[in-house]
Amino acid sequence: MKINVILSPLNVDELFFTGKTTIVIDVLRASSVIITALENGAKEIVPVATVEFAVKVSGGMFGGQTLLGGERNTKKIEGFALGNSPLEYTREVVNGKTIIHYTTNGTRAIVKAKFSENLFVASFQNLSAIVSHMISLNKDFEILCSGRGNMFSIEDTICAGRIVSEILKQKETVNLTDSAKASAALSKSYGKSILKILKESEHGKILLENGFESDIKFCSRLNSTGVIPYFSGNVIKLLPANNKP
Amino acid sequence: MKINVILSPLNVDELFFTGKTTIVIDVLRASSVIITALENGAKEIVPVATVEFAVKVSGGMFGGQTLLGGERNTKKIEGFALGNSPLEYTREVVNGKTIIHYTTNGTRAIVKAKFSENLFVASFQNLSAIVSHMISLNKDFEILCSGRGNMFSIEDTICAGRIVSEILKQKETVNLTDSAKASAALSKSYGKSILKILKESEHGKILLENGFESDIKFCSRLNSTGVIPYFSGNVIKLLPANNKP
Repeated sequence: MKINVILSPLNVDELFFTGKTTIVIDVLRASSVIITALENGAKEIVPVATVEFAVKVSGGMFGGQTLLGGERNTKKIEGFALGNSPLEYTREVVNGKTIIHYTTNGTRAIVKAKFSENLFVASFQNLSAIVSHMISLNKDFEILCSGRGNMFSIEDTICAGRIVSEILKQKETVNLTDSAKASAALSKSYGKSILKILKESEHGKILLENGFESDIKFCSRLNSTGVIPYFSGNVIKLLPANNKP
Repeated sequence: MKINVILSPLNVDELFFTGKTTIVIDVLRASSVIITALENGAKEIVPVATVEFAVKVSGGMFGGQTLLGGERNTKKIEGFALGNSPLEYTREVVNGKTIIHYTTNGTRAIVKAKFSENLFVASFQNLSAIVSHMISLNKDFEILCSGRGNMFSIEDTICAGRIVSEILKQKETVNLTDSAKASAALSKSYGKSILKILKESEHGKILLENGFESDIKFCSRLNSTGVIPYFSGNVIKLLPANNKP
């Protein structure tokens, strides 16, 4: 098994992912929104790369069953039903619904990786579930960090490194690229307080300034769920095994 | 003082650097070639972003005073006088000469950062000299890691992190971006054997396979020189203070 970490979607083009197995991470907060929405009964998430496309897609769907959600630079988008706080995606709101989801970084990363043979979404919340699934899948894979506005994101990289470290503990023959090694080293040197990492990150500071402290706490919960979001046919659903009782 | 580390030239565009102070790092091996050539009396280095431009520029200069040097994917380029091994750039060969320099990553990174107000070239070899100079300059600065073929380079990032760590030791009020913090943490967790880091890096392994072990040893020497290459008017020369006896 070979693991590579891509620190920014800019480092690769769409065709890079053809036939690959990929995990996309956007700790703050797209991964968390997607995981939470599916956990609370959303039928599917449609990640889109532009706001214009979000509006276009939603227009062609049955009114009551579709919700527009997301953010541009932390802020809710005019005309959207939901922002990008996972706390908004309660069962009452999302159960049975299709969510059209646009965010500045995370959904764009997912769309970029759309040609992957297998495409999963991860965060600290479902880390252990993802690790177990990758071990049973036993394929080479890429971890794509969504980054923040073309730049490095420390929280995504530490989450990627933690996935790598956990797999190393459970599997003997793992090949790591330089970026995978560096991510694992970074995860170790930053210790175990995920909440502290998130609060002190550049993105975390902006969220704190905008009143989203409870979101940061929510996103910092390690292994709070077994949900694995899986992208196929342009939508994200629960991984089939996840659907079984 | 604020320090940012850019992990790949892809993360920013040329105009990002306007008015900034920038250090470009390409440990294996462009930084080393540039430092060594200047140390051995080269008049100047002209970094170019394409092989075609290298040939064009050299054609307009006085034959005997100009040398074409560089590599494409580790290999010397047909028609070039010199490859990209710093060991080729001896005093006998380069003294008084203008070197037109093309490499896959390093010189392209320098050209990308050309609008910087101050632009320096660093590696482990001149690390202490660069650190002292940045402290006396006392300005915010960017460290641009050249990376390798659009991807992350662990040796460049650890070198950047070491510069950050050394400055933190000597200066109290330093602001670090996420990537600067991560680079410093990585430098610490990888310990002190630069030779080991270089040999185990992806780029190092390719150089070893191609018979460049002595280059890796050469590039691993910490603080072997006080030379600071400075880019101005499209050429790299010794920083003026470096010229004084």
